[in-house]
Amino acid sequence: MNDPRLGELLEFLRFPSVSTQSEHHVDMIACAEWLKSKFLAFGLDANVLETGGHPAVVAKTQRDPAKKTVLIYGHYDVQPPDPLNEWTTPPFDPDIRDGRIFARGSTDNKGQILAHILGVGEVLNRGEQLPVNVIFLVEGEEEIGSDHLESFLEKYQADLACDVIAISDTGMVSHGYPTLTYALRGIAALEFRVRGPLQDLHSGVFGGAISNPATAVARLIASLHDGEGRVAIGGFYDGISPMPDWERAATAALPVTDEDMRKLTGVTELFGEPGYSAVERVGARPTAEVNGIGGGYQGEGTKTVLPKEAFAKLTFRLVPGQTPDDILAKAEAHLRAHCPRGVTLEITKGHSGEPYYMDPNSPNGLAAQRALETVFGRKPALMREGGSIPIVNTFRKVLKVDTVLLGLASPDCNAHSPNENFPTENFFAGIKLNQALLVELGKK
Amino acid sequence: MNDPRLGELLEFLRFPSVSTQSEHHVDMIACAEWLKSKFLAFGLDANVLETGGHPAVVAKTQRDPAKKTVLIYGHYDVQPPDPLNEWTTPPFDPDIRDGRIFARGSTDNKGQILAHILGVGEVLNRGEQLPVNVIFLVEGEEEIGSDHLESFLEKYQADLACDVIAISDTGMVSHGYPTLTYALRGIAALEFRVRGPLQDLHSGVFGGAISNPATAVARLIASLHDGEGRVAIGGFYDGISPMPDWERAATAALPVTDEDMRKLTGVTELFGEPGYSAVERVGARPTAEVNGIGGGYQGEGTKTVLPKEAFAKLTFRLVPGQTPDDILAKAEAHLRAHCPRGVTLEITKGHSGEPYYMDPNSPNGLAAQRALETVFGRKPALMREGGSIPIVNTFRKVLKVDTVLLGLASPDCNAHSPNENFPTENFFAGIKLNQALLVELGKK
Repeated sequence: MNDPRLGELLEFLRFPSVSTQSEHHVDMIACAEWLKSKFLAFGLDANVLETGGHPAVVAKTQRDPAKKTVLIYGHYDVQPPDPLNEWTTPPFDPDIRDGRIFARGSTDNKGQILAHILGVGEVLNRGEQLPVNVIFLVEGEEEIGSDHLESFLEKYQADLACDVIAISDTGMVSHGYPTLTYALRGIAALEFRVRGPLQDLHSGVFGGAISNPATAVARLIASLHDGEGRVAIGGFYDGISPMPDWERAATAALPVTDEDMRKLTGVTELFGEPGYSAVERVGARPTAEVNGIGGGYQGEGTKTVLPKEAFAKLTFRLVPGQTPDDILAKAEAHLRAHCPRGVTLEITKGHSGEPYYMDPNSPNGLAAQRALETVFGRKPALMREGGSIPIVNTFRKVLKVDTVLLGLASPDCNAHSPNENFPTENFFAGIKLNQALLVELGKK
Repeated sequence: MNDPRLGELLEFLRFPSVSTQSEHHVDMIACAEWLKSKFLAFGLDANVLETGGHPAVVAKTQRDPAKKTVLIYGHYDVQPPDPLNEWTTPPFDPDIRDGRIFARGSTDNKGQILAHILGVGEVLNRGEQLPVNVIFLVEGEEEIGSDHLESFLEKYQADLACDVIAISDTGMVSHGYPTLTYALRGIAALEFRVRGPLQDLHSGVFGGAISNPATAVARLIASLHDGEGRVAIGGFYDGISPMPDWERAATAALPVTDEDMRKLTGVTELFGEPGYSAVERVGARPTAEVNGIGGGYQGEGTKTVLPKEAFAKLTFRLVPGQTPDDILAKAEAHLRAHCPRGVTLEITKGHSGEPYYMDPNSPNGLAAQRALETVFGRKPALMREGGSIPIVNTFRKVLKVDTVLLGLASPDCNAHSPNENFPTENFFAGIKLNQALLVELGKK
């Protein structure tokens, strides 16, 4: 464990760079400056740049017009470490045990981005040429929504021009199994509130004559699916292409079974759209999920009220062929058409993000697959992830390039949770992966 | 306003006899002792008796076996006055304005029970004979469920033996309109909780493959009614007799229209079981109401969780022909049959009470009607109330007698709410009503 590269990571992890807490702004600056110093030491041109929020660090090799240019994105900000008392060792005092580095940010994203930085640094320190031009963009606001990223990309569009983007901020399908994520679901959020009487009523005195807002919310939610789990909103599945055979075969070959998913979540049985495996349902199929529901008495025992209002918070996960605006419009039309009489319905649309898809068999996708196979010695898993990473669409929109997602996170990494950890072997593999990836992406 | 009878009421209202708050126990005792002194002053035999909780006050005239015996029930405990800042004048410092007495307990139930006490007292103070034997039972736990009443009635069964019970603790159909309540709905409470995954899951990572407990709760609630508002639980309406013609005619003649109910509640339109007026729906028809629903994220904005559990709190209001045990069994069977796959359902049965019905055209019912007409100068409204008053069934069960319910509460009395009030004219009418009622009930 005396590898100096680990020492670098421990230094990086000691910055409590919690972007959402203003008292850590000084730690954010210190962490950004530390990154800049690393880049400068490798001979890169490096700057800490204002974004309007926490600064971003941009570092670049000298641009050789004969070579392709790869932008490597990561973030130096981390989630808050709460609840502190659930950590075995302090979140910002990294501890190595059982082959893992325990610290906030170890996986998400300091360990992964530093692997790329050190991968480039090793080559340069050996006096060798990189196979591509490299731009690092390490931002400080990923955990709080990357609100300034789009305007930043627009401002520095010329400096950040590249052929492809690489990000290691996703997961491996299982421990040590190389994984290329080629699709992410989009998201569209909607909250609705049903209002009935002017105030909570006595359910004895008025019950039976008044439309109950909690019942109305329940009937609206129930209308969103058929009995087998298909979304029942008119036109919801319009525009979605069937999964091609190669993709269904690749998904079936992943080392994750339905039974693994059932055990992982602890449910009695899985449930969802008929005709798809659990991995397909969460990666390749859209959903309508209730994230919260509430109304009336919430305490212990009974309070015989007929509540004046009730609400539900929904998010739709979207796949290619769907757009947030269209789905929200269809959802609104569905809810208005199904709202019971005697109540009023108020709909508030929330945040949204487009789905993302990058053909894993495109030249860049195949390059990423070859790099993963070189380092891990086996063909990588090809994965659609069910979550949403809006920045990849921002990159596509502003910089007009695709992103390859080569995640190094273990399924049990506890990202965003206490005892976040990163296997040291993933860190060292990440350094090699960076080098192999740049070689493969550099091929013409 | 210098009527000494009002002075007595103000004294009574100054006791903060809040039964649910233990710091008021001393006020409860003081209030009970005050009542005892009033009864003693009129020459009744009066005692403050232990119940196991707050004491009850029992006062009796000497029993003349040639006369019928009427038990007049009331309660001296009151609801908590919170929220205090919404009161125009302090809840325990009664204020008379606009012809009304504003104080906690003014309507519920101190004003109404004191009217009966003073009605009897006036007759006795004039040196006259009462037309019946009278027993007063004024308890201190009505607002907290009368938990000790049944055992108390059993213990003092012989002392409390009577021919009929009179209670003024219900409402008048409209301001100043004499009202006989001859039926009350029963109640049966049930809470169910649906559990899915072991913990809240990321709705992106897992959404689509897991049965969502909030969706399951919504589907279960939606299954409780058809689209028109009928309860869809199998056998729910079994055993209920159709309303007879006289009753539908009497209900139609009540000075309350559907539009009155709509305005009172502030809904855009009424909604309920087809074929019945709003007054019929709340009085004569059973219901399944959601009192509370909850699960997942309750805060502002979005949190993309797939909640591990969700719940609903239901109460059923029952009418004659239904029993709580039977309805709860049918509801449980319905919920178990309709529960979606992939989640577990936990059902907790809550408190219950039988429906109550007393033929308003029985001898005691007709006596009550005559008394009301004598005092108010018009034929009384005959009402079924939608709420539940379990003690009337306790009286029927232990003492084997019916209860006549002659309410003096105005629709806008704010019982249980800030600015509770009691019109002084209702108080004085109540004194006369007591005297007329005892005359009518005393007839053989």
